[in-house]
Amino acid sequence: MKFITSFVLTAAATVLSLPASAQFAKPEDAVKYRQSALFVMGQHFGRIGAMANGRVPYDAKAAVDNAEVVAEMAKLPWAGFAANTDRLSQKAKSEIWTEQVKFREHNEKLVGESGKLLAAAKTNNLDNLKTAFSATAGTCKGCHDAYRKD
Amino acid sequence: MKFITSFVLTAAATVLSLPASAQFAKPEDAVKYRQSALFVMGQHFGRIGAMANGRVPYDAKAAVDNAEVVAEMAKLPWAGFAANTDRLSQKAKSEIWTEQVKFREHNEKLVGESGKLLAAAKTNNLDNLKTAFSATAGTCKGCHDAYRKD
Repeated sequence: MKFITSFVLTAAATVLSLPASAQFAKPEDAVKYRQSALFVMGQHFGRIGAMANGRVPYDAKAAVDNAEVVAEMAKLPWAGFAANTDRLSQKAKSEIWTEQVKFREHNEKLVGESGKLLAAAKTNNLDNLKTAFSATAGTCKGCHDAYRKD
Repeated sequence: MKFITSFVLTAAATVLSLPASAQFAKPEDAVKYRQSALFVMGQHFGRIGAMANGRVPYDAKAAVDNAEVVAEMAKLPWAGFAANTDRLSQKAKSEIWTEQVKFREHNEKLVGESGKLLAAAKTNNLDNLKTAFSATAGTCKGCHDAYRKD
């Protein structure tokens, strides 16, 4: 079962990675694209974190607005990790390209948790937001620990 | 009437510009944020342009997917033109900050046209997409001509 899952994910990753690189005029654009999407996502995620950690007052509408951006942005950066960009970044570890299945699993986790974060924000309940923020932050950390150089 | 409209827009711009700068930890983040959002938007808009201009085959689903990102991203960059960033960019003209009402009108036009672009993409009709792409591109050019240094 595990083999089949891995095989399907590998096939999916291969299919998805082909148009990914073709989408960018040059490899540098792919790098800039993923870094840009992650930066925008990080800014909005940080605003939710400020509420979750009590650094700024809880604002239910702002939480939803920010979570909507996070959930949308979470889907974007991965296309920028195109095959021809593996030596263009100082921060991205080469394992991103040698462990495509695992890397994609991290990607899917973030998309999943950020979707839950948006749902939690919409409950207008700070405790729900805190829980979902923590889970989403865990997916950021998990991927950074594995695939980002310090 | 025109006076009242301008007054309301000025008041709105003032209200909106206050939290904008407060949202960023430092002015450089605001600049990076707006540049990142505009870059991501430009990448997806360019893919629609490639279809509209016949450089790549028309793909109705890809058009909708890209238009969705454009419409979402169009709402973001303006918060990054915070008051304390007027001297941090080599490309942004100072008129952005001295003509806040007009600048915001350009912003609103882009948000409006990119919303129509998404609606046009969803009709699955290439001619509709071409028309809406051209209108949206016009708002990009209008704002760049007025507020971006060459």
